[in-house]
Amino acid sequence: MIIDCHGHYTTAPAALQKFRDAQIAGLKEHTDVPFDAQTPISDDQIRDSLEGAQLKLQRARGTDLTIFSPRASAMAHHIGNEITSRRWTAACNDLIYRVCELYPENFVGVCQLPQSPGVAPLNSAAELERCVTELGFIGCNLNPDPSGGHWNAPPLTDRYWYPFYEKMVELDVPAMVHVSSSCNPNFHATGAHYINADTTAFMQFLTSDLFTDFPTLRFIIPHGGGAVPYHWGRYRGLAQDMKKPLLKDYLLKNVFFDTCVYHLPGIELLLKVIPADNIIFGSEMVGAVRGIDPETGQHFDDTKRYIDALDLSDSVRYQIFEGNARKVFPRLDQRLKW
Amino acid sequence: MIIDCHGHYTTAPAALQKFRDAQIAGLKEHTDVPFDAQTPISDDQIRDSLEGAQLKLQRARGTDLTIFSPRASAMAHHIGNEITSRRWTAACNDLIYRVCELYPENFVGVCQLPQSPGVAPLNSAAELERCVTELGFIGCNLNPDPSGGHWNAPPLTDRYWYPFYEKMVELDVPAMVHVSSSCNPNFHATGAHYINADTTAFMQFLTSDLFTDFPTLRFIIPHGGGAVPYHWGRYRGLAQDMKKPLLKDYLLKNVFFDTCVYHLPGIELLLKVIPADNIIFGSEMVGAVRGIDPETGQHFDDTKRYIDALDLSDSVRYQIFEGNARKVFPRLDQRLKW
Repeated sequence: MIIDCHGHYTTAPAALQKFRDAQIAGLKEHTDVPFDAQTPISDDQIRDSLEGAQLKLQRARGTDLTIFSPRASAMAHHIGNEITSRRWTAACNDLIYRVCELYPENFVGVCQLPQSPGVAPLNSAAELERCVTELGFIGCNLNPDPSGGHWNAPPLTDRYWYPFYEKMVELDVPAMVHVSSSCNPNFHATGAHYINADTTAFMQFLTSDLFTDFPTLRFIIPHGGGAVPYHWGRYRGLAQDMKKPLLKDYLLKNVFFDTCVYHLPGIELLLKVIPADNIIFGSEMVGAVRGIDPETGQHFDDTKRYIDALDLSDSVRYQIFEGNARKVFPRLDQRLKW
Repeated sequence: MIIDCHGHYTTAPAALQKFRDAQIAGLKEHTDVPFDAQTPISDDQIRDSLEGAQLKLQRARGTDLTIFSPRASAMAHHIGNEITSRRWTAACNDLIYRVCELYPENFVGVCQLPQSPGVAPLNSAAELERCVTELGFIGCNLNPDPSGGHWNAPPLTDRYWYPFYEKMVELDVPAMVHVSSSCNPNFHATGAHYINADTTAFMQFLTSDLFTDFPTLRFIIPHGGGAVPYHWGRYRGLAQDMKKPLLKDYLLKNVFFDTCVYHLPGIELLLKVIPADNIIFGSEMVGAVRGIDPETGQHFDDTKRYIDALDLSDSVRYQIFEGNARKVFPRLDQRLKW
């Protein structure tokens, strides 16, 4: 089977955004807008939002199961306060749960976290636990910069984050390192902030002993690992100058890259420099780039085509499309064995 | 000839750092430490600092001329105030001038700018003019984030920067977009901040009309363009979604990438996706990564080897090693015709 580890619910029914808009408006007026007060989203609305988009593309591209989470750019942890984030997060996660209940063959959930600038990461543990133990989710998206482009939280390797990691380890779920929209005019969200965060997180891991402290903690760095595979020589060299072990021994038991790289030469490079054990198929569909590449006549984000075009052994292909996802998301593996 | 467009004086005599340390100490004590008050650096000290390092490596690697600027990580525009930056910058640039006078065949100068957080970019124009017209420099390093990792200046495409660009255009010199050290613990300087800045600048250019306003303005994005070539499909796709022209028509008359990518697969990718007109040989030597790659037995930053290993036509090889540098730095071209 072919598992896409990186899909967001970018096509959610308009009522979700309507709630968010009301919530944001309420911040100014100091009113409180519970999600339940909105017109409910019907199952048919959910079906409609997916049938012509993610489900259609799954069928067209020949992928089976998408690891599905709320829209990343809409997490916007920097808006409002912890309660704002908590309510918005619960609404988004509950909707993902409904998607996964309606289409259990097609989607499995990964949760947004109720992060908020200056709020202890431990405060996100309860929502993670709820999503995993009650809603059947298999992982989370962790935002290394809840400020939305001001980067004023401690690095991911700081003990500040450790209480949350303890919960991840306890539940045996990985996190995708994923920022949200940027309120810093320097950073375009999908063109700079996302990619920068990926690169930044990897370098934080490289300069730390995080995985000595948490040997089973696992992170997926999306968007093909940001700039990291392209600069793999730089990272190998920096690690060596710092007297660190080889990156493959030092970080690659815990750090994985998806394949959200939107052209064949990029995917070729990724497969050339990063061990196949560490690459998990992902497309970010329907996501950052929605058009058709005039050079190929195919969607930029149809990343399966790039992998299909490479001369890979069956075992490597299995790892990328299925095996690594089962390994990194053990709760997915358990579910698929049902 | 082989021109290396990216070298910093990372091996400057210790007296330079001694001045800087005194200057920084003086900030706390509100004392003023002019560079002239320090023990002068002798010509022999300069020779010694280069003979066993950059000059030795030029000879060993078979490169001819390095476009040479002050140590990027030491620019640290975030330290002190505008006067601090101005004095430090002048000291660093004057030393580069002495290097270029001592070794006119081996080095040509590019200047640091006296940027400072919150200070108008126009205030850097006089130092640029001094360096170009009096010291014979051919370009500058422009820091898009003088705050050192807090990213609180306007984007490079904001009109805030325009008065400085007018001076660049008037003098017909390009800028390398180059941040300095990071005082934000999230960002390792050479492993994250540098690469992020490269990616960020490109995306700023992509979302702007800067080159409509300044058709002859030219930027080099170092470190192989950050994450950009690896994600070239993403950038082509984002531009298309924004209804922009093709990137090659839209940005590549004004934006160039160096070859500071420290492994063969990265350089292969760069040459595959970026037109040869836009690639300028660079090594960043002696710089971010100083070790020997155990996989090749050669220095990571011996980027000439990677290009030599590729099957390129003579004309493409000429463009990358010489022709593009002459085109992007017209004052270099004039000088080489002497």
